[in-house]
Amino acid sequence: MTGRIVISVDAMGGDRGPAAVVAGLVHSADKNPEIAFILHGDEAVLRPMIDRHATLSGRCAIRHATGVVTMHDKPSQVMRHGQDTSMWSCIDSLRKGEAQAAVSCGNTGALMAISMIRLRKLPGVNRPAIACLWPSRNPGGFNVMLDVGADVKADPEDLVQFALMGATYARNGLNLSRPRLGLLNVGTEEHKGRTELRQAAELMSAAADPGGYEFMGFVEGGDIPGDRVDVIVTDGFTGNVALKTGEGTAKLIADFLRDAFNANVLSKIAALLALGSLRRLQKRIDPRRVNGGVFLGLNGTVVKSHGSADDTGVSSAIKLAFQLAKQGFQDRVAARLAAAMEAADEAAQTAGQTPDQTAGQSEPETGKAAPPKTSEQENGGQA
Amino acid sequence: MTGRIVISVDAMGGDRGPAAVVAGLVHSADKNPEIAFILHGDEAVLRPMIDRHATLSGRCAIRHATGVVTMHDKPSQVMRHGQDTSMWSCIDSLRKGEAQAAVSCGNTGALMAISMIRLRKLPGVNRPAIACLWPSRNPGGFNVMLDVGADVKADPEDLVQFALMGATYARNGLNLSRPRLGLLNVGTEEHKGRTELRQAAELMSAAADPGGYEFMGFVEGGDIPGDRVDVIVTDGFTGNVALKTGEGTAKLIADFLRDAFNANVLSKIAALLALGSLRRLQKRIDPRRVNGGVFLGLNGTVVKSHGSADDTGVSSAIKLAFQLAKQGFQDRVAARLAAAMEAADEAAQTAGQTPDQTAGQSEPETGKAAPPKTSEQENGGQA
Repeated sequence: MTGRIVISVDAMGGDRGPAAVVAGLVHSADKNPEIAFILHGDEAVLRPMIDRHATLSGRCAIRHATGVVTMHDKPSQVMRHGQDTSMWSCIDSLRKGEAQAAVSCGNTGALMAISMIRLRKLPGVNRPAIACLWPSRNPGGFNVMLDVGADVKADPEDLVQFALMGATYARNGLNLSRPRLGLLNVGTEEHKGRTELRQAAELMSAAADPGGYEFMGFVEGGDIPGDRVDVIVTDGFTGNVALKTGEGTAKLIADFLRDAFNANVLSKIAALLALGSLRRLQKRIDPRRVNGGVFLGLNGTVVKSHGSADDTGVSSAIKLAFQLAKQGFQDRVAARLAAAMEAADEAAQTAGQTPDQTAGQSEPETGKAAPPKTSEQENGGQA
Repeated sequence: MTGRIVISVDAMGGDRGPAAVVAGLVHSADKNPEIAFILHGDEAVLRPMIDRHATLSGRCAIRHATGVVTMHDKPSQVMRHGQDTSMWSCIDSLRKGEAQAAVSCGNTGALMAISMIRLRKLPGVNRPAIACLWPSRNPGGFNVMLDVGADVKADPEDLVQFALMGATYARNGLNLSRPRLGLLNVGTEEHKGRTELRQAAELMSAAADPGGYEFMGFVEGGDIPGDRVDVIVTDGFTGNVALKTGEGTAKLIADFLRDAFNANVLSKIAALLALGSLRRLQKRIDPRRVNGGVFLGLNGTVVKSHGSADDTGVSSAIKLAFQLAKQGFQDRVAARLAAAMEAADEAAQTAGQTPDQTAGQSEPETGKAAPPKTSEQENGGQA
């Protein structure tokens, strides 16, 4: 597998079983000669599936694992007793450096729990986050939102780290040099919303330069699919509710649309005539195309695919993992966090040691940071 | 205006000005002979508009008010200095009993603030809530969600009151005898989500019988447009984000759909053929048809229309206000809250005075309530 980028894939735990996962692998391998896999799960089941596809020959190792994490397993249980599972094995390949990124369709809570204890958090990170891509009016077609469910809480300091990590993800995943970033609230005016969000907004504004993003202030739910910002920052409770509400609404409308075209003979003929356009529409809002929540803030890139992903969905999660691995995303997030922390430290020191120089022009108590300190390797022609 | 149900309407403060409001009045008056209005705003502007429409003759009084609450006014400012505004006058008509319900397209925060100080909260209510209707897969076509933005916080006790008020709204607004109710969370399993939500779930389960609803436990964002429950209970921050995310997603898809049909000649012909079906679809998801957030927990029924509502939107908010007024909704909410509080008191007394009778079979510490005590006048053939 020399020279290829290796993705560690959990074959079990998705709603459709290993067949859908292997079909996704085949899809990706056909399209991308640079990719190789380590597949984790029951070898007796996986071996014949792999051997059937010539395209996977020499590009897919199997790591035997008997246990399977189900959707109903509690994360705390899996953390204690999940060592024999395919999910654990999948993350361990990443930890050992055998693979450059990991993909699983399994239980989100368990995957995060295993990732936390095996990979550990990046220095300075308090809460990891899950970032998703969201269809939007922006030219690239997608926005980034985080956290969408790693944790139900987030302090102002956590939200600033989400901002730094989300901006780096947008630079690498959406190829934006200076992403515009908004903090989710119930109103865009400064006096609205929860007190802790006003505090977070100040911190995020101060960290904009070292973080390499443009802070646009508060945004509302309607901006998540909009073009005012590229990155939407929120806590994991609100983000998860918003994500699922958006998905549910899109699905409801798609079903209503299907009903509308099945209503009568004329509408059925219309559907035939508009087939090409409707397919393009479907592609634009197809959740399988944006399949993959990325875990941020860990020592390793983990992509969580939808539990119900089919081959197209699995393949798109693999593609995302591949892109991030190829761009050295992991090092970039770490560098950006380190630079921002350094800038904040310097600002605090400047404020503490030479108050006369800053008095009247900066606000050291809000953690206002030093001038930009961008990481050189970031956006280094890997567009 | 004898024998008619009178709706107090704020003519100013909407994005489209008084013309859209008056057009909405005309629309409603044409369709409904039982309705009459008191219109609040600048008489010099309103009088000629009203006089132009024979259908409003003798059915629309004007109360002159010079001030206008804008979308940018702070609620706290309006509370102190807004006595001369059309919004204040509109709520005061309701307070004086001149009208049975009030409608405004203005600033939500200011409308809630004026309603709170002029109408006062119902006995026992800590936080009022705003309830909205949401297009869904349920047979009636809509679900109820609350709070969608009255307050950014809600304690477990507040969520139980939201449940009682939301269930009454669903009985009257959606004509459901025993609404199914869910508490919004990030997972449906009992161990997931925020601690205070688990506590709220226990209280809501205990209040189900006196509240006349079926408690279905936790629901997720995807259930908001679904058919698992009829009423979704959440805090005003999460509810507002969900509402705006859903609206934004629906609008994005509608725009993409328009693009798809304008793509080429074939798709344009298709659009013509499918016109009838597409119009039915549009009607099914048209936000103007479900226009109107209802303020719950106050001494009076206030309907908040979208700021950008056109005549169709205003008319549908007026229709909602009329229906609720005609059904005696206000008294029913008050009766239901009183009955639930009484049941909870009785349960607490029973638990305290005769512990031997309840030991081992009930859980008095969770506030488990006494047997059902439904309000007789509710659902009394007003279907």
